[in-house]
Amino acid sequence: MSGENELRQRGQNPPEETQETGKIKPDEMDSDGEDRIKLDTVGSAIGQDKNSFGNQLLERVLSGLPPRWRNWVIRGIFTWLMIGGFGFIIYGGPLALMLTTLVVQVKCFSEIINIGYAVYRVHNLPWFRSLSWYFLVASNYFLYGESLVDYFGVLVNRTEFLPFLVRYHRFISFSMYVSGFVWFVLSLVKRYYMRQFSLFAWTHVALLIVVTQSYLIIQNMFEGLIWFILPIMMVVMNDVMAYMFGFFFGKTPLIQLSPKKTWEGFVGGGISTVFLSWGFSYFMCQYNYFICPIEYNEYLGQMSHSTCEPSANFLPQEYALPETITTLKTVMGLKPTMTIYPFYLHAFFMAIFASVIGPFGGFFASGFKRAFKIKNFVPVKLHKKAGNHLKILSRQDFGDIIPGHGGIMDRFDCQFLMATFVNVYIHSFIRSASPQKLIQQVFMLKPEEQLTLFYNLQDSLTQRGILQP
Amino acid sequence: MSGENELRQRGQNPPEETQETGKIKPDEMDSDGEDRIKLDTVGSAIGQDKNSFGNQLLERVLSGLPPRWRNWVIRGIFTWLMIGGFGFIIYGGPLALMLTTLVVQVKCFSEIINIGYAVYRVHNLPWFRSLSWYFLVASNYFLYGESLVDYFGVLVNRTEFLPFLVRYHRFISFSMYVSGFVWFVLSLVKRYYMRQFSLFAWTHVALLIVVTQSYLIIQNMFEGLIWFILPIMMVVMNDVMAYMFGFFFGKTPLIQLSPKKTWEGFVGGGISTVFLSWGFSYFMCQYNYFICPIEYNEYLGQMSHSTCEPSANFLPQEYALPETITTLKTVMGLKPTMTIYPFYLHAFFMAIFASVIGPFGGFFASGFKRAFKIKNFVPVKLHKKAGNHLKILSRQDFGDIIPGHGGIMDRFDCQFLMATFVNVYIHSFIRSASPQKLIQQVFMLKPEEQLTLFYNLQDSLTQRGILQP
Repeated sequence: MSGENELRQRGQNPPEETQETGKIKPDEMDSDGEDRIKLDTVGSAIGQDKNSFGNQLLERVLSGLPPRWRNWVIRGIFTWLMIGGFGFIIYGGPLALMLTTLVVQVKCFSEIINIGYAVYRVHNLPWFRSLSWYFLVASNYFLYGESLVDYFGVLVNRTEFLPFLVRYHRFISFSMYVSGFVWFVLSLVKRYYMRQFSLFAWTHVALLIVVTQSYLIIQNMFEGLIWFILPIMMVVMNDVMAYMFGFFFGKTPLIQLSPKKTWEGFVGGGISTVFLSWGFSYFMCQYNYFICPIEYNEYLGQMSHSTCEPSANFLPQEYALPETITTLKTVMGLKPTMTIYPFYLHAFFMAIFASVIGPFGGFFASGFKRAFKIKNFVPVKLHKKAGNHLKILSRQDFGDIIPGHGGIMDRFDCQFLMATFVNVYIHSFIRSASPQKLIQQVFMLKPEEQLTLFYNLQDSLTQRGILQP
Repeated sequence: MSGENELRQRGQNPPEETQETGKIKPDEMDSDGEDRIKLDTVGSAIGQDKNSFGNQLLERVLSGLPPRWRNWVIRGIFTWLMIGGFGFIIYGGPLALMLTTLVVQVKCFSEIINIGYAVYRVHNLPWFRSLSWYFLVASNYFLYGESLVDYFGVLVNRTEFLPFLVRYHRFISFSMYVSGFVWFVLSLVKRYYMRQFSLFAWTHVALLIVVTQSYLIIQNMFEGLIWFILPIMMVVMNDVMAYMFGFFFGKTPLIQLSPKKTWEGFVGGGISTVFLSWGFSYFMCQYNYFICPIEYNEYLGQMSHSTCEPSANFLPQEYALPETITTLKTVMGLKPTMTIYPFYLHAFFMAIFASVIGPFGGFFASGFKRAFKIKNFVPVKLHKKAGNHLKILSRQDFGDIIPGHGGIMDRFDCQFLMATFVNVYIHSFIRSASPQKLIQQVFMLKPEEQLTLFYNLQDSLTQRGILQP
C-alpha cells in the first residue's frame, strides 16, 4: 500500500518535486520511521485518502451516508478490528503480548520523535536520527533487562553466558548510555547547538513517556494477564463509551483543549466503564490464564502463566449487604448475602482512574499536538526538503496508521498514565514482597551470610513463637 | 551584598526602568530564584563587579597584576575557600552532607529552570513557576522517600505514623505527580501552548539531571562517606589540575565546545588525578569515619557511620610485584612485596572516569549554555519586563554566585555523570545484596511465609553441607 501511494503521489507532483523526493530517500533510510513518513504524505482522514483499494471500497459503500455518520462507521469498524486483533494477541499468550507492547512502544516513540524532527527541521543535522534510536535501544536494554533479572533470575543463572550480563547489567547499560552521551557531545555542530539540545531533550522526554511506561506495562503483565488486559480495556471502553454518549447526548463542552469532548460523554463513559469492567472482571476471574502471575516454574522447567493457587482477590467471597437491601432480598426469596470477587473493588478503582484521570493523558496529547503541529511550521517553499514533514504538521493526529483513529499515539495517549497507576496500585495495595523472589536473593549471598541470615531468622521466629525450638 | 548592588543598579538606571524593576518584584517573590536573579543583574566577572566591599579590596590588592593573573588568583582563592567549606561540612557528618547536597540540588535546578524561563519568556505564563517547583518537591519526596524506606525500614516501622507513609510511599508520590500533571493540563492557555509544553519538557529534563543524580549521590554516601567525598574531590582535582596544566603548558586546543581546554591540561589533569586520588584514598582508608556504611545500629538505637568491621576493600593487603621490580627492590634492601589497599584499584577506575568522561559533562554544559544563552535572546527594548533575565542571557555562566567560577551549575556539571558512574560501579562491583536489608524484607512477609522461607533455606543449606542437620 505504501509503495502504491508513493507512486501516485509522485505522479501528481511536478517534476522537480519528484527529484527532490528522490534526494531525500537515502537520508531517511537509517530510521524505522521511513515507511510512516511516506504514508504520511497521503492525506490522513479517510475522506481524503482515495488511493488504497480497501478505502475506495469503503468509500463507495458508505457514499450514501452523511459525512458525520460515515466517519462514525469507519471509526467503529476499525475499533472492532482492533479489538479483534487484541483478542487474537491475548490468545497468543504473554510472549505475544510483550512483543506487541514493544512494537507499540517503538511506533509511539517514532511518532513523537518524528514530530520533533519536523519541528526542528533536522534533515541535515549530523547523526541525530541514529542517536535517538540508539537511546531507545539503550534504555530498552536497561529496563527490559531489569525486568528479566527480576523475574528470571533463577533461570538465567543456569546458563553459561547470561550471568555475566545479569551481574553487570547496570554497568553495561550505563556504559551504553554514556557512549550515547559522549557521541551526542561530539556530534555538536556550532550552527545547530540549539536544535541539537532541544532534540536531545525531546528524545529524553519521549523515552521517559514511552519506554518507562512500556516497562511498567510489562511488569503489570507479570503479576497476571488481568492486570495488563483489563486496564487497557478500561481505557478503550471509556474512550468508546464517552464517544458514544457524547455522540448521542453530548451538549456541554468539557475542556478547551479537546473541543469535541463533552460532560455528557465524560460522565456516561465513566459510569459505563465501571459496569463493563465488572462484567469483564467476572469473566476473567474464572480463568487461571488471566489471574496467575507469570513465573518460572521450577518443576516444569519452563515459564508458566496458567498454573497457580489463585490469590484471595480472585476467589469469590460472600459479603453481607446493608440491612434494607438484605430485608428486601429476603422478602423476594433471594439469598441475603452477595457473592462477589474481591477483585471487583480493585476493578472499581482502576475504572474510576481510567475515566477521571485517564482522559487527561488525552488532553495532554491534544495540547501537545496543537503546540507543535499547527503553529510551528514554515512555508513549503522555504524548505523543500522538509516538504514531506510539513504535511504531517498540517494535520491533527500523530500519524494515520489506523483509519478514523489517527496514529498509534492517538490511541495510546491515555494508556500511559493508566499503566503507571496500575503499577503503583499493585505495588501499594496488592503485592507485598514475594517470598520466592526473596529466597532467590538470599541464595545469591555468600554462604556464610546465608548462614547468618538463617540463624537470625531462626532466633526471631522462635522468639515470636512461630517456630518450635 | 545583594541589596547594596540592587540599589546601585537602580541608581544607574533611568527612572522608568526603576519602576519596571519594582513591578517585577511581586512576580518573582514565589520562587527561590529571586535572590539569584537580583545578583545576576550585576556583572559577572569579578573585573566588572566593583560594588561589594570584599571585591573592592581584592581589586585594590590585585590591581598590580595583569588581568590574566588576577583572574587566576581570584579563582584560586575561591577554590580554596570552597575546599575549606567542603572540609568543614564533611566534619559535620552525613546529615550536614545530605543537607548540602539538597541545597546544591535546589540551586542547580533553579539555575537551569531560570534559563528556561528566560528562553521562553514566561513572565505572565499562568502557574509556571509554581508548577516547576511543585514537580521538584514531588520528585524529591519520591526519591528521598525511596532511600529512607530502603535504609531506615526498621527504624521507621517502630514509629506510629511513618509506616503508613512507607507502605503507601509510591502511591502518595504518584498521586502528587498526577496532581501536578492535571494541574499542568488545566493551566494550558491557547496562546502559550508551545512555550508551556517546552517548559514542561525543560522541567522534566532538569529533574532528570538534578534530582535523580542527587538521589544517586546520597545513595553513594550511605555506602560510606569515602564513596561520596572521593569522587567529588576527583572531579575538583581534575578540574583544578587540568586548569593548572593548561595554564602553564597548554598549547593544543582539545574541543571546539570549550575553547579554553587543551590536550596538555586534559592529560596532565588525568595523571595528577590518579595520583592525588591514591593519596587521599590512603588517608581516608585509615578512618572508620570515611569507610563505614551509614546504617541504623540496632544496639545503639541510632544511626551510625563510624563503627563497623571494615570491608576487605579497606584493609591493607600484600601484593607480589613483577619480577624485575622485585629483584630491584631486594637489591636495594626493600621488602619485595607491596602493601596497599585494594580500594586503590577502585580509586584508579573512578579517577580515570573522572578525567576522561567527566569533562564531557562540562562540554555538555558549555554547549547547553551556548545553545540557549547567546543565540536566543530578543533586544531589551522589545521585552522590558525580561530585562533582568536578558542580562543573564548575555553572559557565559549559569550564574555568578562564586566569583571567578560562575554559578553552582558551572562547578557541578561534571559531578552528575560521576555520581551515576560511582553508583553503578558500587552496584556492579562492590555491593552484593546486603544480608541486613534482606532480613528486613523477610520480616515484612506474613509469618507463614517467613516460616516457608525458613524451611526452604534450611533444606538448601543442609543439602549444600553448610548447615549440620
